Amino acid sequence: MKLSEISTWAPKGSNKNEIKELTKELKQRMASLQHKMRAQEKYSLLVVLQGMDASGKDGVVKNVFSKIPAFGISVASFKVPTKKELAHDFLWRIHQESPEKGQIKIFNRSHYEDVLVTRVLGFVDDAQAKKRFGLINNFEASLQDNKTIVLKFYLHLSKEVQEQRLKERMQERDKFYKHSDGDWETRKSWDQYMKYYQECIDHTQEAAPWHIIPVDDKWYKEYLIAKIVVETLEKLDLEYPDLVTELV
Amino acid sequence: MKLSEISTWAPKGSNKNEIKELTKELKQRMASLQHKMRAQEKYSLLVVLQGMDASGKDGVVKNVFSKIPAFGISVASFKVPTKKELAHDFLWRIHQESPEKGQIKIFNRSHYEDVLVTRVLGFVDDAQAKKRFGLINNFEASLQDNKTIVLKFYLHLSKEVQEQRLKERMQERDKFYKHSDGDWETRKSWDQYMKYYQECIDHTQEAAPWHIIPVDDKWYKEYLIAKIVVETLEKLDLEYPDLVTELV
Repeated sequence: MKLSEISTWAPKGSNKNEIKELTKELKQRMASLQHKMRAQEKYSLLVVLQGMDASGKDGVVKNVFSKIPAFGISVASFKVPTKKELAHDFLWRIHQESPEKGQIKIFNRSHYEDVLVTRVLGFVDDAQAKKRFGLINNFEASLQDNKTIVLKFYLHLSKEVQEQRLKERMQERDKFYKHSDGDWETRKSWDQYMKYYQECIDHTQEAAPWHIIPVDDKWYKEYLIAKIVVETLEKLDLEYPDLVTELV
Repeated sequence: MKLSEISTWAPKGSNKNEIKELTKELKQRMASLQHKMRAQEKYSLLVVLQGMDASGKDGVVKNVFSKIPAFGISVASFKVPTKKELAHDFLWRIHQESPEKGQIKIFNRSHYEDVLVTRVLGFVDDAQAKKRFGLINNFEASLQDNKTIVLKFYLHLSKEVQEQRLKERMQERDKFYKHSDGDWETRKSWDQYMKYYQECIDHTQEAAPWHIIPVDDKWYKEYLIAKIVVETLEKLDLEYPDLVTELV
């Protein structure tokens, strides 16, 4: 999977209105599946969202998972580590946020930042990054062994669309809060990020594969993620549990 | 407020269809208000749900707060305390779950169980309960002082409707998971629970008042809670923040 060779747009000829209808249906199916998952308490689902600034991670939470009641889903986002977090290994704070049985957890950014931004900023060198790829594979294997399904999405954004979206954040009052000067700074290292994303994706496919999602068209991104989530849950033996009672 | 004198049904003459329309509108308004709250990061909202088994706490989460994206809301429920939790004061685990700025947190059961079920089971005597009322008032005052608005709802259910709902849980396959023999056991102490609820509500109005919600009609419950939440948020000075940048 060469990122540079994958389009950031919906496939040519995609019918936007049809796709939006399909997404609606998928979201309903997702809600029923999650209800079963929650009743059964056998599986959980971890959704990892990675992508450049303005790649639409919040939009995925808001528009793909909107039919799941709040008791079935939660979001964790990982900021600059605190002093206490830095006093542990990089997976320590991540592990604490893994989903309980029956639950969906969305990581808005994740342990992958520890082999991405940290490399760009020079905190982590190539050898350390390589070691971390292995540790991440082990970590994800351990989650999956406990029936936490791990789905990883790389939100594949073009540099042009990013510019447009970052500008919008400076022009629309209800988006100001999303603006950070730092995002424009980060953008200057675009090529470096792409290189490290590519490397990271190549080396962390072992326990849980990556899905590359073209995100320049939001409606297509939403459809594709909903589809992958639903198909993944449908492969599990989700069942409502039997009645457990001594009253009869 | 005498619980025994308050109806558990919607007020006579309420128009169900009209009310359902109003609820829809309220839910949209709630979503916009929460979006502002999240952007501003000044306030947070703690919603405490208390009520007997089958009073519809999950239903409130699912049907009243369904327009809030998962990154703006989360649910905490408190089970039998673990050994570690019991090694601290009763508010320790509760405090950890209080909402961050910009967030809505729903407590599905709460610190109030520590003056309810614990009294029925005899773990907490009258003197301890009285002391805890004071500690709870102080705790809630401390949250409110930090701009965490505390809204407390007592879901007011009739004993007849409870019976009906508990039976449904034993008859419908997708509700089996909600059934617990223990709920029928608890039901035997109904009058004791009512007595302790009344006492608890009387003594914990200081920092954050209680709202008594008739819940035998689900549609009315949803409307009333949505209305109180929206009216509460509308009283705050919620504003989208200004653009903070040195780029211009």
